[in-house]
Amino acid sequence: MTSQKAIFYHAGCPVCQEAEKMITNYLNCPVEVVHLGQNRQRIDEARRFGVQSVPALVVDSAVYHINYGAGLNDI
Amino acid sequence: MTSQKAIFYHAGCPVCQEAEKMITNYLNCPVEVVHLGQNRQRIDEARRFGVQSVPALVVDSAVYHINYGAGLNDI
Repeated sequence: MTSQKAIFYHAGCPVCQEAEKMITNYLNCPVEVVHLGQNRQRIDEARRFGVQSVPALVVDSAVYHINYGAGLNDI
Repeated sequence: MTSQKAIFYHAGCPVCQEAEKMITNYLNCPVEVVHLGQNRQRIDEARRFGVQSVPALVVDSAVYHINYGAGLNDI
């Protein structure tokens, strides 16, 4: 992952949608939006980044959990 | 608060500093950075926005708690 791309992991829940709105409106770098419920094969990738719950933003190899929608184990 | 200004509340902790880096680098709107430990008179303002812990970002009247550094009551 380069420093100029962010990945936003979510699961479609209301908390995720609210966070996605902010991320989409206000982040100034390209963001890949990944619905982990619909892309379960990427759950392990998220876990490797350190994601523990969604919604979460990964950028510059750092994980930012934004509020709390669901734990990765509950998806 | 207009929709074009964000407020980032923090308390100087490592988790806050990490989140501030992301906010400062990647948010495309003006951000007011408020250190609540050094501006304790603004703790009530943060609470009214719904902030429960820091670091937190308030934008468009919504609160985004970013990871967890400290509860407002512990500042």
